[in-house]
Amino acid sequence: MPVRLDIRDAGFADDFEKLLHAKREASEDVQTLVAGVIGEVKARGDAALIDFTARWDRQTLTPETLRIAPEEIDAATAKCSPETLEALDLAAARIEDFHRRQVPEVVDYRDAQGVRLGARWTPVGAVGLYVPGGTASYPSSVLMNALPAKVAGVERIVMVVPTPDGVINPLVLAAAKRCGITELYRVGGAQAVAALAHGTATIRPVDKIVGPGNAFVAAAKRQVYGLVGIDSIAGPSEILVVADAANDPAWIAMDLLSQAEHDTSAQSILITDDADFADAVAAAVDKHLETLPRTAIAGESWRKHGAIVLVGDLSADAPALVDRLAPEHLELAVADPDALAAKIRNAGAIFLGRYTPEAIGDYVAGPNHVLPTARSARFSSGLNVLDFMKRTTFVGCDADSLRAIGPAAVTLARAEGLDAHALSVALRLPGGDHLPKGGRA
Amino acid sequence: MPVRLDIRDAGFADDFEKLLHAKREASEDVQTLVAGVIGEVKARGDAALIDFTARWDRQTLTPETLRIAPEEIDAATAKCSPETLEALDLAAARIEDFHRRQVPEVVDYRDAQGVRLGARWTPVGAVGLYVPGGTASYPSSVLMNALPAKVAGVERIVMVVPTPDGVINPLVLAAAKRCGITELYRVGGAQAVAALAHGTATIRPVDKIVGPGNAFVAAAKRQVYGLVGIDSIAGPSEILVVADAANDPAWIAMDLLSQAEHDTSAQSILITDDADFADAVAAAVDKHLETLPRTAIAGESWRKHGAIVLVGDLSADAPALVDRLAPEHLELAVADPDALAAKIRNAGAIFLGRYTPEAIGDYVAGPNHVLPTARSARFSSGLNVLDFMKRTTFVGCDADSLRAIGPAAVTLARAEGLDAHALSVALRLPGGDHLPKGGRA
Repeated sequence: MPVRLDIRDAGFADDFEKLLHAKREASEDVQTLVAGVIGEVKARGDAALIDFTARWDRQTLTPETLRIAPEEIDAATAKCSPETLEALDLAAARIEDFHRRQVPEVVDYRDAQGVRLGARWTPVGAVGLYVPGGTASYPSSVLMNALPAKVAGVERIVMVVPTPDGVINPLVLAAAKRCGITELYRVGGAQAVAALAHGTATIRPVDKIVGPGNAFVAAAKRQVYGLVGIDSIAGPSEILVVADAANDPAWIAMDLLSQAEHDTSAQSILITDDADFADAVAAAVDKHLETLPRTAIAGESWRKHGAIVLVGDLSADAPALVDRLAPEHLELAVADPDALAAKIRNAGAIFLGRYTPEAIGDYVAGPNHVLPTARSARFSSGLNVLDFMKRTTFVGCDADSLRAIGPAAVTLARAEGLDAHALSVALRLPGGDHLPKGGRA
Repeated sequence: MPVRLDIRDAGFADDFEKLLHAKREASEDVQTLVAGVIGEVKARGDAALIDFTARWDRQTLTPETLRIAPEEIDAATAKCSPETLEALDLAAARIEDFHRRQVPEVVDYRDAQGVRLGARWTPVGAVGLYVPGGTASYPSSVLMNALPAKVAGVERIVMVVPTPDGVINPLVLAAAKRCGITELYRVGGAQAVAALAHGTATIRPVDKIVGPGNAFVAAAKRQVYGLVGIDSIAGPSEILVVADAANDPAWIAMDLLSQAEHDTSAQSILITDDADFADAVAAAVDKHLETLPRTAIAGESWRKHGAIVLVGDLSADAPALVDRLAPEHLELAVADPDALAAKIRNAGAIFLGRYTPEAIGDYVAGPNHVLPTARSARFSSGLNVLDFMKRTTFVGCDADSLRAIGPAAVTLARAEGLDAHALSVALRLPGGDHLPKGGRA
């Protein structure tokens, strides 16, 4: 059964602390194996990619068939139902619209001393998007990762997706097509990450790699970080629902299960101020589990990692608990969700009110569904357009404005014992030809 | 002697490629040692901190003297010259002013379907700032790391700084005071990073750790990443100067040396279109080296890692080379720096024109001097206010707007085989009590 805590119990502080720090994932040590795979791809390029794909995906490829042909993408798209493609289109349009508002503006001004100052943003040149194969191959994730890059202006987006035994989800290819991705390779695992980072004869290297993956993919991303940029390493999904007794227990129970069905390591937590409502939700979860197709996964997640936390007053007690849990997804199913949201600092995304189930944000709301997990919402944000851009600051002085601010730089550089720093400024100041201290060559 | 390349030479492409990928730092393997230190601090807290500080900094501390007392900070500040404190004030005011323009605004709107959408930013709760001891203990870095956090609204900023043999740079304490930092501890190394991440009886844990450090500090930051946020791991400093023949060779030579004097692993590169000017700069570097106090460091950096690249036409040839080098600092010492800057995509910071030596940006210009190194300007940005904030997106539907966008979410969730996702939306749609497909508990 899921843990049940009551804020009024003596042991609450300790139990809550345990809930916060419970490990949900076994960390597999795949470092050495992954380092070997990366080394092989670096040394042998396409040949290594082809070998690993034969071994792990049971697919015989050639340099020519590494890339997924446009005809294959079109054919896969044609196989999808019109209803599904229409839903995909609606989702894509809404995601684009939301993310377009994230594009930053140039700052460019001259200050009181006449110094020109500012910052401009440019897109990352080339981005690699990892898409898992098999059961976790989600078209919605293709949209969520590719569209912010597209909106940012990234010129080259490369998708890699393993096709074990030749199988690929046609809707994943349709989603890639909807995003305008034309460069796709049927490779996966650490070898695909290595190819994106180091390049091969067929796959030119990229500047940044994003997208979810298994332990091997995550380890490979960590190992190539520095050579290329990466997004954050995603942990198992989480939902925290804050709900009062006025909710339909069946709705709240299904929301909890919508995360639990992802993965046995997922975590669903309910905070409520009503013990009877808590009982009703727990009962509704059990009832739902009788008919859900993914009942084995959802049930294990709920029993192992689920929790119900009872508090005295939602508005007074919940915010501090939410901030410590720093959930990936936070539902506020209460009468005045805005008032409660205003008191909360740490959450990846907030779903306001009784008619906003978290799943709406997974697909069509518009904000990104790639969000900080494992309490990292304390210090990080969901995927967004800025993740695909970088800022370059600029400074421009003329002789006058350098005279205004330069002497302070000379003073500080000398105080730090960095004479060339001081002299590079001092030489440009009046009298710089006859520097009193430090000398001039 | 520094490498000399000419874009018109047959071997240029290969030689430039070598320049791009030359390793400048020996990567020490300190993983195991650092993991041990972190484990000790986690297990024994203050006692471990005190032991490590006795061993490596030759300082006998108690839990009471771990923290630097306000009187000590005041006394140190009183020791600094008024001229230096005034320069520090000018720098701080300019840095604050520039960074204040980076504070993002709330986005909050209702779309055509009546869905409430938006994002708001909140500061990270607590930030740890690592400040190196000894010769690389720079007050300017205290300003550059602490002030963006302050501007972001971070409530708790904790500074750790080792004081080997009891020595500390008074100006570092004065800079902390200027930034309003009151919580300082005299500990350093991996043990200080461990204390910030895991907490001890004396040092409460933080949410994010920033600031430069040696190989042990960098390894510790990597190891605690995930539990807390970290900034990027900084490599040795770099400058790329694009200069035409109208510059004073002595000025450009000093700019190259201002990076070279940091570290024997630093790199200074000149791109010019004039062979005689290149010779004159090289000669001026040698002349400057005769009198610079840090001539040993600067000379070794220049000889080992310096480069002069001759091109046919700066405007036509330089941008592509700059983008591949993706320098931390880029000086454009040409007649029309704006025109050249507009063609360039990858640089941490750009210094425009002949009167903007890079060192002005290290101290007083206003933009941050913590910038992406080792070609990471291809995908990342300098330190800024957003590094100390995180974005929470929000969505709010009512019954009507959920009816407008919900069915598409149900379709996509079913296509992905995630029935609880689909049902959590469908239950809230009209007729959700009598779901045709998937069933309801």
